[in-house]
Amino acid sequence: MSLIVKKFGGSSVADNEKLRNVARVVTKSHADGHQVVVIVSAQGDTTDDLLEKAAGLNKSASRREMDMLLACGEQMSASLLAIAIEKLGFPVISLTGWQAGMQTDSNHSSARIKKIDPERVRMELDKNNIVIIAGFQGINKFGDVTTIGRGGSDTTAVAFAASLKADLCKIYTDVDGVYTADPRVVSGARKLNEISFDEMLELASLGAQVLASRSVEMAKRFRVKIEVLSSFRDCPGTIVKEVVKMENMQVSGVARDNNVARIALIGLQDVPGVASRIFTLLAQHKINVDIILQSIGRHETKDISFTVAKSNLPDARALMEDHRDSLCYEALEVSDQISKVSAVGAGMVNNPGVAARMFEALAGAGVNIQMISTSEIKVSVLIDLADSDRAVQVIHQEFFG
Amino acid sequence: MSLIVKKFGGSSVADNEKLRNVARVVTKSHADGHQVVVIVSAQGDTTDDLLEKAAGLNKSASRREMDMLLACGEQMSASLLAIAIEKLGFPVISLTGWQAGMQTDSNHSSARIKKIDPERVRMELDKNNIVIIAGFQGINKFGDVTTIGRGGSDTTAVAFAASLKADLCKIYTDVDGVYTADPRVVSGARKLNEISFDEMLELASLGAQVLASRSVEMAKRFRVKIEVLSSFRDCPGTIVKEVVKMENMQVSGVARDNNVARIALIGLQDVPGVASRIFTLLAQHKINVDIILQSIGRHETKDISFTVAKSNLPDARALMEDHRDSLCYEALEVSDQISKVSAVGAGMVNNPGVAARMFEALAGAGVNIQMISTSEIKVSVLIDLADSDRAVQVIHQEFFG
Repeated sequence: MSLIVKKFGGSSVADNEKLRNVARVVTKSHADGHQVVVIVSAQGDTTDDLLEKAAGLNKSASRREMDMLLACGEQMSASLLAIAIEKLGFPVISLTGWQAGMQTDSNHSSARIKKIDPERVRMELDKNNIVIIAGFQGINKFGDVTTIGRGGSDTTAVAFAASLKADLCKIYTDVDGVYTADPRVVSGARKLNEISFDEMLELASLGAQVLASRSVEMAKRFRVKIEVLSSFRDCPGTIVKEVVKMENMQVSGVARDNNVARIALIGLQDVPGVASRIFTLLAQHKINVDIILQSIGRHETKDISFTVAKSNLPDARALMEDHRDSLCYEALEVSDQISKVSAVGAGMVNNPGVAARMFEALAGAGVNIQMISTSEIKVSVLIDLADSDRAVQVIHQEFFG
Repeated sequence: MSLIVKKFGGSSVADNEKLRNVARVVTKSHADGHQVVVIVSAQGDTTDDLLEKAAGLNKSASRREMDMLLACGEQMSASLLAIAIEKLGFPVISLTGWQAGMQTDSNHSSARIKKIDPERVRMELDKNNIVIIAGFQGINKFGDVTTIGRGGSDTTAVAFAASLKADLCKIYTDVDGVYTADPRVVSGARKLNEISFDEMLELASLGAQVLASRSVEMAKRFRVKIEVLSSFRDCPGTIVKEVVKMENMQVSGVARDNNVARIALIGLQDVPGVASRIFTLLAQHKINVDIILQSIGRHETKDISFTVAKSNLPDARALMEDHRDSLCYEALEVSDQISKVSAVGAGMVNNPGVAARMFEALAGAGVNIQMISTSEIKVSVLIDLADSDRAVQVIHQEFFG
């Protein structure tokens, strides 16, 4: 008998038919003799509908009240799933985040998990119940409802898997695993049987939307074995775990992120402290910077380019313009017609040829590289948005073709 | 400075425009220097929508899970109202039933209130916050969400008013007070300035849908002064309180209930224990009986007639038919084409002429009376459904015309 945590996202529970499907998947595991804990997201468009309703009343509602409102989305889908499971004749109970012992800090709308008190969940499992937990939410020390922000339901699942020492944390999605590239872009993309936490982390943060990177970080820290698989097809998915087999491929996948914008400050003074001033300013305004590139100075000036999320571009641009005098640059260039394409693989660190092969493939396809960023297990390039599909295809062809 | 509890029903918070209206009403009291606690129902059709969704999955869902689901309705409207109030720049916080300290027994879907621990509400009032509480819900000793059933939001309001020793409990509805008869039926119906708990109780239980009788009972027990008034028009409503002025009218109102059905058992044996067997049987099947009438025996038989809610008629009828042999009656007659019309008034007890005047008015209008039931402060008659409007009109004319 294993203890399995299963997580179903919003599209997997979007309507009654899908809820019935999830009920079948969940009860099958219980019938097979496993203890089952299920984390659910809000149904389909529920969260967006609630956001819209609130925005119609007040565009700057407090985050405390927004959490109170949005947490209902997961509570409703949790109870509806329990009701669907009751119909199949299985013992089941749904719990809100606070009932399940999910304790967070008070940073409403993007709270951090402080600890899980799994007593109630354990008690329900001992009673042979399937336990459904509303994902994405917890409670702070004042007894107020919090939500844990982006990737919250994946993270809830991994947190409970860690706390309950589950044998496996199954993340059900609308794809059937982690692919070497987005199958919608690369027709020959292959499903991976397994991938390491580090590779998954790079893929996730580079734009592969299959798992929230925050949940992968937590899984890595607490050594929670994850399987990413389909809600709708009954076949094995991709296992994400600490170490994958030695004969690992150099490159495990190609990721792509079109939600990026580039800002270049041209003709900055080539003196110490310039970069620090720029990035401190951005950090103070909570604008996350991804790739940073600084040119070698000439004529006592230098250029600094960096990328931000597209949604942050207007703020970042305004910030740079407001501080033109203090930052002392000659020109500001921005572009949001760009794409970040990355090759990821733990095998890369011992194979210095990977970057070269990637650049060659791009050159062969006539794709111009604007910026390059590398880590031990990934190489990212910034290119024209128009070249994005072709770039993913030729890089995938180079390593998996 | 007074402490005022205000309750808004589902139709008063049905959409964003109505929520903004409620926000204005609530903040006006706060601006006037009062402490304000607001109890809200779920928005308009939310509860029905959730019931329908659940029924699509499972027609016999557990009441525990239904409570978990339905409680979201009030939580959502509470947070939305708080968000609308924030927009107006007032300090506000929304609380679920459990956060507000509402403790109930474990009888899911129709839980009884055990006690209210008002500590959190008091703390928020001390911080000058307007406190919005999700009505209709509480928590049991196991930490599970419960709902308190019919009239739950009215009852929540009165319970908090009692617990907080509020100066006034204002129940906002879509009518502007308690009338001497339904204004849709009787054009000359008059709004009452005040009415006693007992009269209100009779009116509520006799079909006037303005206040849940359960909430009136609680208000009477804890001496909570209630005002029933309009959410949309800014004018005084009807005060419900312990004692009303001495020069009280004999009759304070005319009520009507068309949700009744009559069952007659003809030719029962005229021996002791017959009535007891019938009504024990009905009670065992949780069928509430309202008016009971037993004819004087002739030829050693007697007839017993009683009324039940229309929705209980099929069950009650089947029950009587199943026990025909043991109950030993000659014939069974049922009708659901009937109406119960009542005159209510604390002044009645000292004015024996009231019933006679009522019967005369009905006779003058050619309305045949099928059954009569009286108490110290009301006279009810059962008549043909087709005569119902006319009966209400002539009785109202007799006492108020």
